[in-house]
Amino acid sequence: MNKKAVVLSSGGVDSTTCLSVAIDELGIENVSTVSILYGQKHSKEIECAKRIAEYYKVEHNIINLANTGIMDKSNCSLLAGSTEEIRHESYAEQIAADGEGMVRTYVPFRNGLMLSSVAALAMSIYPDDEVDIYLGAHADDAAGNAYADCSQEFTEAIGKAISLGTYGKVNLRAPLVNLNKAGVVKAGLELGTPYHLTWSCYEGGDKPCGTCGTCIDRAEAFRLNNILDPAL
Amino acid sequence: MNKKAVVLSSGGVDSTTCLSVAIDELGIENVSTVSILYGQKHSKEIECAKRIAEYYKVEHNIINLANTGIMDKSNCSLLAGSTEEIRHESYAEQIAADGEGMVRTYVPFRNGLMLSSVAALAMSIYPDDEVDIYLGAHADDAAGNAYADCSQEFTEAIGKAISLGTYGKVNLRAPLVNLNKAGVVKAGLELGTPYHLTWSCYEGGDKPCGTCGTCIDRAEAFRLNNILDPAL
Repeated sequence: MNKKAVVLSSGGVDSTTCLSVAIDELGIENVSTVSILYGQKHSKEIECAKRIAEYYKVEHNIINLANTGIMDKSNCSLLAGSTEEIRHESYAEQIAADGEGMVRTYVPFRNGLMLSSVAALAMSIYPDDEVDIYLGAHADDAAGNAYADCSQEFTEAIGKAISLGTYGKVNLRAPLVNLNKAGVVKAGLELGTPYHLTWSCYEGGDKPCGTCGTCIDRAEAFRLNNILDPAL
Repeated sequence: MNKKAVVLSSGGVDSTTCLSVAIDELGIENVSTVSILYGQKHSKEIECAKRIAEYYKVEHNIINLANTGIMDKSNCSLLAGSTEEIRHESYAEQIAADGEGMVRTYVPFRNGLMLSSVAALAMSIYPDDEVDIYLGAHADDAAGNAYADCSQEFTEAIGKAISLGTYGKVNLRAPLVNLNKAGVVKAGLELGTPYHLTWSCYEGGDKPCGTCGTCIDRAEAFRLNNILDPAL
């Protein structure tokens, strides 16, 4: 019996690096990916996640939480029904303007919901195996408590809940949690991560906007590794 | 600003008692309920939960996880697509026959998935309030580790994850967790819980089967309180 991995894949830099780590650690035949729709304004990230799974020839699962009634009443700026615009400034600028705490791109308990969904999926598709869920959370995510559901403390708590609630069969791993984003890119470059297939921008255009929080972070991470972003 | 409560309501004895406790503690105007479809063989419990919400005149929300792709591949005996039959014997008999650990009515990480969904819903419907999620878990649920996601340890871990992942705005309460099922019924009778509207049976017939694990447990809990089950 081999240990299996289910990698939460958003098609972005962090989760794609995490996929490379899982393949490196457990072997490609034991790895599958899962992407989650929760009512995003665009589905670009799912298309990229699918292409990345095809690149590695791993199974790609989709969980669709968009029409479940969970977030219908949320006005988070990433959601399709929201009246809020996505802000075109860095997280550091948002925190400077608004103070520490919740940013407007925080989706209600998104990581908790996604990880719980993946834990249930993992037990369903691998009922006889032990499964590690790989999550691409990293140290920068929790800066200024912008995203409460990305902190190491949160990841540890939900990981404990997942282990306890699955008879110890499913466990959460966040192998990048001590790295900043530049460190994530460095690790991924060493593993040959296909960054040219990734998408990070909050907007769903043909090309990344270059000015939203995640575009700014991404560009900086590649710059610190002395290369141009291969997706541009 | 009042504290709000969202009560996870399955239309059964435990969650309906929990609803009575929430109303007693926070006042009826601050309470709403939520029921979750995850692909059950029947929707009887949702109909009962709806009628119970109408009885108390509280808002009733429905989250539908049935067509999300999460449990499509699970063969749990409670799910509509399963080839497994529901067993007509008590949990004690099941544990004696199969040993301790997972029972066939364990739905993959159900409580984790439901609580995460409710945490996200709570932040969506009450963005400006603190919200307590009320869960009707009780001491008997975790006997023999039959349901790993009902233990007190699990409830504490997921509760911590919910608090951390929502900036402390949403918290989990399990006010019945130290009571056995007879104790739950005793507490509910004192609060006037409308047990005549509840449904517990795993089968979806016109009347409870009387012989599945949950029917047996329920009958015994009323018997120990010296009354007949008012739903019969």
